[in-house]
This record gives sequence, C-alpha cells and structure tokens, in this order.
Amino acid sequence: MITAEIINIGDELLIGQVVNTNASWMAKQLNEAGIEVLRVIAISDKREEIIHALNDSGNRADVILLTGGLGPTRDDITKKVLAEYFQSDLVFNEKVFEHIKTLLSKRGFDVSKLRTEQAEIPANCKALPNEHGTAPGMWFEKDNHVFVSMPGVPYEMKSIVADHVIPALIEKFKPGVILHKTFLTQGVPESVLAKRIEDWEDKLPKTIKLAYLPQPGMVRLRLTARGNERTSVEKVLLEESAKLEEIISDVIFGYDEQSLESVIGNKLLKNKQMLATAESCTGGYIAHLITSIAGSSDYFKGSVVAYSNEIKENVLGVKGESLTEFGAVSEAVVIQMAEGVKLKFNTDFALAVSGIAGPSGGTEEKPVGTTWIALATPEKIIARKFLFGEHRERNIRKTALAALNILWNELK
Amino acid sequence: MITAEIINIGDELLIGQVVNTNASWMAKQLNEAGIEVLRVIAISDKREEIIHALNDSGNRADVILLTGGLGPTRDDITKKVLAEYFQSDLVFNEKVFEHIKTLLSKRGFDVSKLRTEQAEIPANCKALPNEHGTAPGMWFEKDNHVFVSMPGVPYEMKSIVADHVIPALIEKFKPGVILHKTFLTQGVPESVLAKRIEDWEDKLPKTIKLAYLPQPGMVRLRLTARGNERTSVEKVLLEESAKLEEIISDVIFGYDEQSLESVIGNKLLKNKQMLATAESCTGGYIAHLITSIAGSSDYFKGSVVAYSNEIKENVLGVKGESLTEFGAVSEAVVIQMAEGVKLKFNTDFALAVSGIAGPSGGTEEKPVGTTWIALATPEKIIARKFLFGEHRERNIRKTALAALNILWNELK
Repeated sequence: MITAEIINIGDELLIGQVVNTNASWMAKQLNEAGIEVLRVIAISDKREEIIHALNDSGNRADVILLTGGLGPTRDDITKKVLAEYFQSDLVFNEKVFEHIKTLLSKRGFDVSKLRTEQAEIPANCKALPNEHGTAPGMWFEKDNHVFVSMPGVPYEMKSIVADHVIPALIEKFKPGVILHKTFLTQGVPESVLAKRIEDWEDKLPKTIKLAYLPQPGMVRLRLTARGNERTSVEKVLLEESAKLEEIISDVIFGYDEQSLESVIGNKLLKNKQMLATAESCTGGYIAHLITSIAGSSDYFKGSVVAYSNEIKENVLGVKGESLTEFGAVSEAVVIQMAEGVKLKFNTDFALAVSGIAGPSGGTEEKPVGTTWIALATPEKIIARKFLFGEHRERNIRKTALAALNILWNELK
Repeated sequence: MITAEIINIGDELLIGQVVNTNASWMAKQLNEAGIEVLRVIAISDKREEIIHALNDSGNRADVILLTGGLGPTRDDITKKVLAEYFQSDLVFNEKVFEHIKTLLSKRGFDVSKLRTEQAEIPANCKALPNEHGTAPGMWFEKDNHVFVSMPGVPYEMKSIVADHVIPALIEKFKPGVILHKTFLTQGVPESVLAKRIEDWEDKLPKTIKLAYLPQPGMVRLRLTARGNERTSVEKVLLEESAKLEEIISDVIFGYDEQSLESVIGNKLLKNKQMLATAESCTGGYIAHLITSIAGSSDYFKGSVVAYSNEIKENVLGVKGESLTEFGAVSEAVVIQMAEGVKLKFNTDFALAVSGIAGPSGGTEEKPVGTTWIALATPEKIIARKFLFGEHRERNIRKTALAALNILWNELK
C-alpha cells in the first residue's frame, strides 16, 4: 500500500480562523487514487516546524503533500525552507516567470516592474503549472519519496493536484486499480438501509469495500473495488453494483458526483418542464443550488425571494388576510406563494418555502425552525410542515434540501 | 508561552469524508485563553498511531487535547490505548455510570441491561462531565503535561472544552495574554497592500505579528499581540492598529469576524434604508449571502431571480427591444433590471447583475465571464462591466462579491 501524509502550513489553521477544507479534499483525491492517507498535520509557517514535519512525515510515508506559504509576501517562507531541506538553491525559472507575466497581464496588472524573485524555485524540483495563480507547484524526490509543495489557495491547489500531482503519482507508484461507484439514496435512514442490504453486504467479495456516507437528508453508499488489473476490478464492481441496485432501486436518486439538484435538472430537461421558486426563509438559496448546475436556464425560469410580507402580497399575490390571520409561516401562505410564482412565471412546477430561520422570530406556537414547504405541480399542490433546529445556517440548508426532496419525489 | 497540540482521531478525517471543524473550534478556544497551538494532527484510530502521536506531541507541548475514538463501537480504542500509555487499568467509575444511566433513561432507553464497561475509565485520570453524551472527558497529568481525551461528537466535545477544560487549563498554567485584531480590506491585491504598509510593518514591535490572509476578492490583515499582562498587550495592539488604520483607511471595510454582507447590513440598518436585488447569472446567490445574516429582513425586501428573458421582461419590466438589440448581458438591460426591481420592491437601493457564468453561452464578443453589474441608489444609477474567468462557480462568487463591493463603496 502506497501511503501519504498531508501537511498544511498556515497560522490561520492554528488559531481557528480557517477550517481546513483543503485537507479533506486532498485526502479524498489520494484515497480515490489508491493511496492511503496516514496523517493530516497543520503547522505554523516557522522554519523549524516545517523541517520537523518534513522529517517526521518523510520517515513514515511515500508521498508528502504540502500546502501553504508560497505567496509573494514576507510571511511565506515555505520555498526557502524547501530549498534548505532539499539542499538546493533558489534559481530563476524562465517558464514560471513567463507564466506569471501572462497571468498578471491578463488581469490588467503592469508587469514591467515584476520582481524576478517570484519566479525563483529550488533548482532540484520540477515546477508544476498553476493555471490559476502565480506560485507553481514544486515536485521533489528524495530516496524514492515524493514531496509536493503547493499554494494554499483552494482552487489553485485543486487544479494542481487533479491535473498534475495525482496523474504523476499514479504513473510513478502504480498503486493498483481502485474503482468507486457511489449510490445516492434519500428517504431512508442509515440503519434501515443497512438492514435492507445486510444479506448482500455479508456476501461481498473481499476485494470490495462498502462505506456508508450519511449527509443531512441523504445517505451515500460507496463501493470501492481494488485489484491489480482493470478488467477484473471493473467486472466485480459492475456485478455487485447491479445486485445492490436491484435491492434498493426505490430509494436511489443518483450516482457518484451527482447532486439532487442535477438529477432534478436532468429530469425536468427530459420532460421539457419548467420550474420556478418562491423563497422566504431560504432567501434565494434554493435558486442558487438549482442555478449552480450548468445549463439550468433550460428548465429554471427564476425565483421571487419574498423576504418581506409586502413582497409576498405585491409580487406573489398572497392575500393580506391570510398573512394577518395565519402569519407568513403557514400552510395557507406557502400554498399561495407556490401558486403565485407558478402563475406569474408560467411554469410547470413551483416550489415555495416560508419558515423561521432564527435565531430570533420564534414564538411558543411557532418556534425557530418551523417551516412550511409547498410544491405546485401541473396537477395538484402539496404542502408539508417541518420543524428543524435552532441554527440559522443549518435551517436554511435543511429547508432547501427538504424542498428539493419533495420535488424529486413528484418528478421520479 | 504555554503550548498545545490537538490530536483528532478518526478514519473519516483521513479519507476526506468529514471536514475537521472540531480542530478549528478547539484552536480558537485555546488561542483566546492565551495558549498557543503548535500543531493539529488527524490520525487513524490504530493503537500505534495514537501512541506515536501521544509521544510526539507530549515531547513538544504542555497541553495535548485529543478527540475521537471513545464511543461504544468496536473501532473506538482510544480509552484502552490511553490506559496503556498512562500505565493504568480501566476501572469502573460509579459517577460516570450514574450519569450514563440518567442520560439514557431520559432518552427512553432501557437501562436495566446497561453494560458496566461503558463506565470504565483509566484509574489515574479525572473524569470530566459530558452533559450531552455517555463518554466522559478524561484529564491526565504526566510530568506537568496535561492530556485531555474527549469524544469527537462536536457538541459533546464543545461543552466539555468550554465548561471544564479551558477553565482548568487557565487555573493550572496561568497562560499569558494573546489578542488579535483583523482588518478586512478590499479592492487592493496582496502585493500592493504589502508595499503600502511596508514601512509600518518594518517598525512593528517584536510582541506583534502580522499575517496576510488573502481570500477571493479581499485580503485580511491579522495583528496578533502577546504578553503577560492584558493592559499592556491591549495598549500595543491598539497603538499599532491605529497606525495601520491610518495608512489604509480607504480600503478597510470591516474588522475581525465581519463579512462584507454583514457590514453592508449594519450600514443599511443604521441608515434605515432598504435593499432589493435582481439577479440573472448569480441565480439568487447575492440574496442568499445577504439573508445569511440574522436580522436581514430589517433591510432586505427580497430579490427577483430572472433567469430567463421572459422574467426580465414580465416581472422586472425590461424592454423587449433592449433584450433583442443589446442582449441580456448588457448595460442597458442590467440598468433596467436594477430600476425595475427598485420600483417594484419600493427600496432605496437595488443591485442587478447579468452575466455569462459559463461554461457555455459565450461568444467572441461576449466571452464566458462577461458580466454587467448595476446599482440603483436614491440619487443615481451606476453600471460596470467585468470580465471574470471561465469557471462557473467562481464566476458566480466573483460577481456576487463585486456587486457587494460596488454597493459598499456607495454606502460608506
């Protein structure tokens, strides 16, 4: 088994200012490439700390990926420490310099006074192109161990890892074939799902591993097949996938990297049906999820974010009496919101939500988290009440997911 | 300086399934208590890994906080390894057992068959009460180093840390004072900012450290002051903050944990002014950002997400001729969108955006990333054209941030 350790450099990780999302993304890529991650270590950008981490991880793992500390400012010392550690000098790299010049001039900066130090890298490393930034990735080898240093900016790091690091690691270490197939399920809790597939799981061949990946509102089941030879790994994965599919076909809504919003989009596109939303407590978040999918303009006309009652009345046509009598968070109002936006936007489907996201605005009768969701379809209108928690951000997310779930159940 | 290391145990952190939010929360608490975090380490729940981490961190830091691996399932081995490491036996603890019984019976479980192993802890540790779960925190001391083991469930860990660990650490170590002040800037790249504050930075007293924290569309500057005595640390931080403020007052939009949307919100609230948005390419994302702030209903009336031209015409009142002549992504259309929503929603300010988020839809004249943003104020209307990149998700984010920047520049 090829092993890796991830070292994330940056004081912001040690004072709790930033959550280390780079680490989990990187760990996922390595795992999917068949490389086992032994540790993730966040350290400060001090020389001794970086040296200690390089020594320690270098003794334990085949691959060491570092992020952070490569920018142009003075607290970025990783490059110098790497030159020292690998007993090399920082030398001017023409290719890197040309890349920085092109990138900055595209962004409209004056490149005539560009300092050449930005294009200096240790002589004994290989520069990996950074499409989205000025600091290149740097690939070092020492006693058959690989060390790769990258900037900490997430999208810069991600494209270097995906386009250059992973392919080169696979080329060098040939970690064997690992294939994944993920089933996205919704509407059944993890424990119930486990019971349903128990017999099949017990008979799984040893080369296949099953993982439960629960998320708010859904459970993902990931099959991982390993072996030395692609054809046979593919065959086993295909066979077991087909068996699993048969057992739980009623709760599977998608596969692999799909999301509920992309699956809904595909279905609407196929049906040639249009959607609109009317959002109160989610404040545009449902529309944002739907429009995150490229091509969504083919089935999504838009949304009215009616954050005040005035807009619910004037734009969506909700009756003033309903607002007074039942309140904004009520079955009557959310139904009128759905009907209103469906009519106004002339769509086949309309989702509407109204709830108390919190932290204030709750009453004894309608505590924070109380939420009504309505769906208008070409045939009917349905409305459901939910009681989520006290946390504003989570309430917004849960409401959006519940709304998309209701829509998917009608579409499928 | 009292130092700490955080060890998070759990395979889910090493396969990229879970983002390590516990670590950043814990690091923040320790920092605010004046304890410096040297490293955060995520490891798997294997005996050798836990022992290696305890040895390594125990040699480096005064305080070692561990999370994870304390539950009732078979892969939770932390407790046994701790007993081994601290050369102790697992012994039944009456107090812990009573707590588990009370908690489980409250939740409706049958406690008659409760296994006593769950209440066994190493004889030489002090149990810290876990209000929200069955596994207690465990406080060990060895050669004046403190090791605390806690469950990995975030809200269980948080209450143990806040109520017991931090107070006991302050009591034992009487750590010095660490204070932070973060300046949020926008509109100037990191390198330009560095140049502007170079002279001031060179003269910073040794007790203060400066860090650059760039993010898409903004750069945060963090000052960290240390010392033994609160009054003098505060004084130095205040003095240097004032000097920095003077140099770059034109680009500072906020401080510490603030966001652009919260700063805008505060200003609108103070001015008693209302805002609405009309969004095409951002698909509701601007409204989502604004409504992420609790209390935003006091200054935000809502949004029209006009994802199709039909909605731009029928709901926002954009002229059909303008759409035909100039296209949806044009100065004329985005101005009419801003005017339309301002009128319809009866607000003081209205932001409108229209762009080609991509990946398709670009032309030679208007490539992917072309974006128009308009702001209608009580006095005037302004419109600006941007050319962002080719990445859909980032284009949406950058557009939203640019729009909020334009609004902030008018408000401030």
